[in-house]
Amino acid sequence: MNSDIEISAELERALIDSVEAGFAEQLAFTRRMVEFRSLRGDESELQAFFHQALQQRGYEVESFGMDRELIERHPGGSKWSDTHSSAPIVVGTHHPREERGRSLILQGHVDVVPTGPQSCWERDPFAGEIDGQWMYGRGAGDMKAGCAANLFALDALRRIGLQPAARVHIQSVVEEESTGNGALMAHLRGYRADAALVPEPEGEQLVRANVGVLWFQVMVRGLPVHVHTMGEGGNAIDGAYRLIGALRELEQQWNERKVDHPLFAELAHPINLNIGKIEGGDWASSVPCWCRVDCRISLYPGVDADSAAKQISDCIAAFAASDPLLSEFPPELTFNGFYAEGYVLEPGSQAEAVLARAHRAVFGRELETMVSPAYLDARVYALYDRIPALCYGPVAKNVHGYDEAVDLDSLKEITKAMALFIAQWCKTEPVAAEGPGGQG
Amino acid sequence: MNSDIEISAELERALIDSVEAGFAEQLAFTRRMVEFRSLRGDESELQAFFHQALQQRGYEVESFGMDRELIERHPGGSKWSDTHSSAPIVVGTHHPREERGRSLILQGHVDVVPTGPQSCWERDPFAGEIDGQWMYGRGAGDMKAGCAANLFALDALRRIGLQPAARVHIQSVVEEESTGNGALMAHLRGYRADAALVPEPEGEQLVRANVGVLWFQVMVRGLPVHVHTMGEGGNAIDGAYRLIGALRELEQQWNERKVDHPLFAELAHPINLNIGKIEGGDWASSVPCWCRVDCRISLYPGVDADSAAKQISDCIAAFAASDPLLSEFPPELTFNGFYAEGYVLEPGSQAEAVLARAHRAVFGRELETMVSPAYLDARVYALYDRIPALCYGPVAKNVHGYDEAVDLDSLKEITKAMALFIAQWCKTEPVAAEGPGGQG
Repeated sequence: MNSDIEISAELERALIDSVEAGFAEQLAFTRRMVEFRSLRGDESELQAFFHQALQQRGYEVESFGMDRELIERHPGGSKWSDTHSSAPIVVGTHHPREERGRSLILQGHVDVVPTGPQSCWERDPFAGEIDGQWMYGRGAGDMKAGCAANLFALDALRRIGLQPAARVHIQSVVEEESTGNGALMAHLRGYRADAALVPEPEGEQLVRANVGVLWFQVMVRGLPVHVHTMGEGGNAIDGAYRLIGALRELEQQWNERKVDHPLFAELAHPINLNIGKIEGGDWASSVPCWCRVDCRISLYPGVDADSAAKQISDCIAAFAASDPLLSEFPPELTFNGFYAEGYVLEPGSQAEAVLARAHRAVFGRELETMVSPAYLDARVYALYDRIPALCYGPVAKNVHGYDEAVDLDSLKEITKAMALFIAQWCKTEPVAAEGPGGQG
Repeated sequence: MNSDIEISAELERALIDSVEAGFAEQLAFTRRMVEFRSLRGDESELQAFFHQALQQRGYEVESFGMDRELIERHPGGSKWSDTHSSAPIVVGTHHPREERGRSLILQGHVDVVPTGPQSCWERDPFAGEIDGQWMYGRGAGDMKAGCAANLFALDALRRIGLQPAARVHIQSVVEEESTGNGALMAHLRGYRADAALVPEPEGEQLVRANVGVLWFQVMVRGLPVHVHTMGEGGNAIDGAYRLIGALRELEQQWNERKVDHPLFAELAHPINLNIGKIEGGDWASSVPCWCRVDCRISLYPGVDADSAAKQISDCIAAFAASDPLLSEFPPELTFNGFYAEGYVLEPGSQAEAVLARAHRAVFGRELETMVSPAYLDARVYALYDRIPALCYGPVAKNVHGYDEAVDLDSLKEITKAMALFIAQWCKTEPVAAEGPGGQG
């Protein structure tokens, strides 16, 4: 047995059984989390609930707000907008009696993306309905199941009288879906550890590398005229769509550069430009004089946000100069959310080895890695803490779509692997000190 | 002198002088009208003001609401939506002591189109500021100047002791910019006359023919997925723009048919499809699952609204069937405003001859005609009353655009021509009956 990465077969068995024993309670807790409508800006109630759950377990807990100035000064700080959440970040800390193992951050985010029209859902997006192996709901997979697993993996140790023999921070953040400023704020608050585990719904795989993401908004102006002289005016909606064409060319150029990023070269389309939101014009009968488009684009790890932003800005300026309407009314570009860089989980870390061992013990197969073309909070730990940042979690379906659901069989196995990982990485100690009179 | 179309040179002179004498007051009244922010749905205050102005002049006045059921049953009724105005229609009626002339409807609409961003205006859009020959403001040209001219052309007669020797209805309507249901409601209320004059800002020309207009809204559904699997989802905003491409082809087909509509064959682009408003998606990071587009398209006179609507519906269905995304989620089409047909002012009417004579007397040149590729309320009189519907009014600039303005020199001359027209068409009688003891 390699004591750096393995725990005893007995402990392994006991932890697996303990996760099984607690799973009904874990499901009920997960479902309760799904019931909170924790859309961007509306996460405070759920955070209060999570704060209480940490407190009930005896963790030292603090809730704290975003420090905009501090975030904006940090190179990893994303841009503010008036839809930025002001819900608190919640961190529960476990202090061991004796530091024998390696410290750990267990992170989850409670913010969820919009549901879209609820009529398109077959299930209530905020009911956490269970059907067979699936629990349905917006955020069920991304990532309330993971948030609950952070708690319940630790509970599994406690159920058999153990606790980590190292400091553990259970961090519940917001703004993961829009800026990543929640995770950054926990970092800025001073929480540090030897590794971080974020149980995002990664299909039982470990994220090897992850793109950065920028959000930007372009306001295109038009020239309103009566529709009867439409040809003399300038339709801002049409202008916006011409501009989107130019941005699609930039997207294609960036995709072609995948050959320089071997981890991403296998993906057919690693860089996605999403035209996520559009609003323009006042009514049908006037040539629209404004159109606002919200976009999201990804960056390869190693590309810094400022240089990507400059390429976007240059692309827009060059196109605008060539366009009869846009040259007269140059579009306004605002970065209004994610301004975050990608990361690579460097292979060979002890943390990864420990997770791989735990995964094998539970799933009976090797831990596979993947590259993720989506933003992940793990970037904060990888880029600014410079620690192994393990993004690893259950199977889910329709993440960000209709009828999102998490696979509960997968969730149970992932929770087991997390418990084994914690036990090995942090080592364990009895919950109650054994000795004359007893302590704890 | 042809007494059917001419009045005496003396009366002509007196009326012209009378318009001059009243013009300062007319300007003040016009400006006061511009100060009302009579955007769609917000016309009630201005209608109350106009009601009062009619009452003060001794007309028999009534204000009445839209009768939705009646309008919807009429073939010229446009479609309702939740933005439909419920402001009243105001009609003032002049009854002569003796019916010697031909009766007349003088119509104007007080609703105005949105201003767009006020920062793009150099003048306050609701101040009626005068600079040189121009009065600025949203609706100054379209068509508050005309509404006031209806009143002041009649005032010019009264100032010299005359009044029309025929019934005259001064109709102030709403919903001209969105449905045309205001003018139709006046018709349904039973107001009838031998001719109608609508002083829209037509650049001192007479409208010979006018397109019909349809408004429609298309809701395109998408398939939301996480942007990292964007290729598997369906972006509703992109889908909407593909659909717009198909509608642009329909627009082109309709434009090619101008050869069958000789009055419109001269126009480069008689049929305009305007993509006036767009809204879609919830935020940057989700593949948008909905996109709603508001469109306006025009029809040649003689094309009935139902058949045009069917062509639009067929075009959308055919494109949707060919599109991977839209075939899965067929777009929803709603007609939500204008559902109005075009008209032709048949040449040769007495009313036109009288107007041409009045125009020549004032402007010293022939009355020119034009075809209008925009909706006009005159269609109600042409199509359903089957009377000469004269759309004729002053020069304006930036109608529906920024810094809309009406040419005050032009307005004064137009008011003179209107006064001459009324005097000849309706004949005149003294305001006070001349006879023993005096009457009236």
